[in-house]
Amino acid sequence: MSSINVTVWNEYRHEKKSEHVASIYPDGIHHAIGNYLKENTYFEVKTAVLDDPEHGLTNEVLDNTDVLIWWGHLAHGEVRDDIVEKVHKKVLKGMGLIVLHSGHGSKIFQRLLGTKTGALKWRDDGEKERLWVIEHSHPIVQGIGEYIELPKEEMYGERFEIPAPDELIFISWFEGGEVFRSGCCYRRGLGKIFYFRPGHETFPIYHQPEILKVISNGVHWAAPSVGAKYSYGRVQPIENIQK
Amino acid sequence: MSSINVTVWNEYRHEKKSEHVASIYPDGIHHAIGNYLKENTYFEVKTAVLDDPEHGLTNEVLDNTDVLIWWGHLAHGEVRDDIVEKVHKKVLKGMGLIVLHSGHGSKIFQRLLGTKTGALKWRDDGEKERLWVIEHSHPIVQGIGEYIELPKEEMYGERFEIPAPDELIFISWFEGGEVFRSGCCYRRGLGKIFYFRPGHETFPIYHQPEILKVISNGVHWAAPSVGAKYSYGRVQPIENIQK
Amino acid sequence: MSSINVTVWNEYRHEKKSEHVASIYPDGIHHAIGNYLKENTYFEVKTAVLDDPEHGLTNEVLDNTDVLIWWGHLAHGEVRDDIVEKVHKKVLKGMGLIVLHSGHGSKIFQRLLGTKTGALKWRDDGEKERLWVIEHSHPIVQGIGEYIELPKEEMYGERFEIPAPDELIFISWFEGGEVFRSGCCYRRGLGKIFYFRPGHETFPIYHQPEILKVISNGVHWAAPSVGAKYSYGRVQPIENIQK
Amino acid sequence: MSSINVTVWNEYRHEKKSEHVASIYPDGIHHAIGNYLKENTYFEVKTAVLDDPEHGLTNEVLDNTDVLIWWGHLAHGEVRDDIVEKVHKKVLKGMGLIVLHSGHGSKIFQRLLGTKTGALKWRDDGEKERLWVIEHSHPIVQGIGEYIELPKEEMYGERFEIPAPDELIFISWFEGGEVFRSGCCYRRGLGKIFYFRPGHETFPIYHQPEILKVISNGVHWAAPSVGAKYSYGRVQPIENIQK
Repeated sequence: MSSINVTVWNEYRHEKKSEHVASIYPDGIHHAIGNYLKENTYFEVKTAVLDDPEHGLTNEVLDNTDVLIWWGHLAHGEVRDDIVEKVHKKVLKGMGLIVLHSGHGSKIFQRLLGTKTGALKWRDDGEKERLWVIEHSHPIVQGIGEYIELPKEEMYGERFEIPAPDELIFISWFEGGEVFRSGCCYRRGLGKIFYFRPGHETFPIYHQPEILKVISNGVHWAAPSVGAKYSYGRVQPIENIQK
Repeated sequence: MSSINVTVWNEYRHEKKSEHVASIYPDGIHHAIGNYLKENTYFEVKTAVLDDPEHGLTNEVLDNTDVLIWWGHLAHGEVRDDIVEKVHKKVLKGMGLIVLHSGHGSKIFQRLLGTKTGALKWRDDGEKERLWVIEHSHPIVQGIGEYIELPKEEMYGERFEIPAPDELIFISWFEGGEVFRSGCCYRRGLGKIFYFRPGHETFPIYHQPEILKVISNGVHWAAPSVGAKYSYGRVQPIENIQK
Repeated sequence: MSSINVTVWNEYRHEKKSEHVASIYPDGIHHAIGNYLKENTYFEVKTAVLDDPEHGLTNEVLDNTDVLIWWGHLAHGEVRDDIVEKVHKKVLKGMGLIVLHSGHGSKIFQRLLGTKTGALKWRDDGEKERLWVIEHSHPIVQGIGEYIELPKEEMYGERFEIPAPDELIFISWFEGGEVFRSGCCYRRGLGKIFYFRPGHETFPIYHQPEILKVISNGVHWAAPSVGAKYSYGRVQPIENIQK
Repeated sequence: MSSINVTVWNEYRHEKKSEHVASIYPDGIHHAIGNYLKENTYFEVKTAVLDDPEHGLTNEVLDNTDVLIWWGHLAHGEVRDDIVEKVHKKVLKGMGLIVLHSGHGSKIFQRLLGTKTGALKWRDDGEKERLWVIEHSHPIVQGIGEYIELPKEEMYGERFEIPAPDELIFISWFEGGEVFRSGCCYRRGLGKIFYFRPGHETFPIYHQPEILKVISNGVHWAAPSVGAKYSYGRVQPIENIQK
């Protein structure tokens, strides 16, 4: 097993605007996640943020990324269309993508899934969430119990405007009365995409070991495989065609 | 059962450029399909073409369309992005969409499915195609036999760069050695999408009764249902939340 | 649209054993459901119960059933294997099947899905359930709101040992902290199967109009279509094979 | 990565009845496959055949099997129901199962999928088959090209009476005019199942390196993961329930 190059991308605005968020993530959400992943010797971990030149997603970075992790919220509209285009193409060619929490509203998520709205219900009252595992044999939930409980989280509720996932891994229960498809796997082109719901910036979600474990499992799952070769375009017939 | 408003959209360029194509479809592919659909008294059928003002897809037309049928090939790039945007939103709100043949390369198909390339193999040698029915109980194949045979067609071959369909209805066999997922159903938002492969302009495919029957069945299937109501956005908790 | 022959099958034991259950369903669950369905002039409705000769599922009855509705709980083991075998074959040939509530443990459900356990979590504390609609454009939820609320129900919780459904229509939220895939669609052979969770015998679930509406929609959805013809077995080649 | 215990089960009758088959597989199909798998140092490979005591599938063997490979044809009916029952339970608890070729008609395959007939079209004329890869990023096709070509094989044609696979990996093209879903992945309980079509006994299919490579990839894919823990049965509420 060779190493997996992971780039953790973060909008990195809340942490600079809010003292409360900064107290939870003094170095930003990207480093909270990145530092955990670095403990895995198979992962080569880099970070990138919105305000870096080219959002930190230069050709060189993308060409050396096997799995891209995406956290965004306030500034989806500021992400440059040409960079979204590049990321989109990379995913179709095999780069894995893990979209976290409010990343459902990002341009890249909506482009890949074909839904424009990314719509859902929400409520930011700091309520209990329980993420129930649905597919216990899936590699993304290796080492996880029956559910992950978050004592205080923002609620996301159905209907969540997504295509039916290829594999549904988690369904969330919320104290206030809603449910949500919180762990969703998709294939698009040669790329694998994992949407994982938790991670509101005002709660220390990315310090909770089970959440980090799921993200780490997701990196393994989404990493490109040395798949079958293929080609597109005009081809010669292999059999004789009756004329 | 109330009537279904169908708009048949055609690029309508091949028919004007090629005498051969014009001899097969003197009034255009849109009328070949539209005239058949008009025989069904439940359908209210209109047509629209690329060179109409606003491609014939004004707000008024779209607001009165339950199912849009799409045939395009040469001029995908000429379709205005703002109109594609409108069609996209209409589908997410429930309008059905039937994409025919080379419409796999259209902006609207690629946006809804999240694949950019719409790539596939092809060969235009006029070979035999046999579309085998895979899901015999699906309404789209009502009244169809085990397969539909086309004596001469353009070949499309796998790999076809699409998300795994929600329902796979037809798989094609081609004389020259390839296979293709030729009938694919998707849900996106509240809209239903049916991709149906046959229909190269140089062969009289849309004069073949079984092909027209499948398109007609597809209109019934893709028509919007009076579905469950829903809403998005901020909501109040229904249960007490422990603070 | 021709009429649909519906047979409502009920174990019909709780109603005879428990005064409380009898007070809710004096004529049995089968008649509570059947009487509602009879209001639809397209449906021809019959009932059958476990203690009828051949469980009321004679060849004549099955040959004249388009959609079979199944409620069982206490006496799954008493259902004769040869009759389960007949029902199984009928479903594969196109008869629709709607399995209600504890019918997840029935022989017919487990045979069709390939899971033996039908296992799940449960708790009979009379708690609130909310069934959230996931696929709003599906015919099974026509005329239903965003969710159906049941003030008191038995809880069923994940993990529910079923194959991933072909279409997931409802996810339930329970007051006590669990979630459940409560509306699941499957195709097996030419038959359509709809599992619908609600209906514990000690609560008046089948008197609630939205629940009855979903069952009625389910009958429409599960009714056999005049699908494509097909055959099995040895066939002649249609093309010349190189020897 | 710890080792994977593989048991290759073979009916082992054709090889004893037919000189022609014996000339291709002098030690039986099980050893042709088993010997290839033994070259992988991660695999611990055993074989078992129908005429062994308990078909070679004693409790001890099954308890030490991570992935079971199944080849059967002539004698599906001779496989003991109690042993099928044990294998079924093991799969639901996580044992992987790879079903080859005419194993579609085996009791274990039909029980797990819920179809009784396992019906399909067939023709034994030794014609060309081409297995096209559909999901190039799937681990089962690592290292495989765009297609695998078999110069002479028995034909299997649609409609194949199976539930829609969770993942469709291969579609076959046959010289005589048919197509077939030749590589199908399913999850049932905690177990993963891979159906792989090729392998008629009268052709040296299991000597072809790409076929063996796919089976080997399948073992990796189907091996049980250390998944999330779960439990079934009666549970206490975690939240207060309003009484």
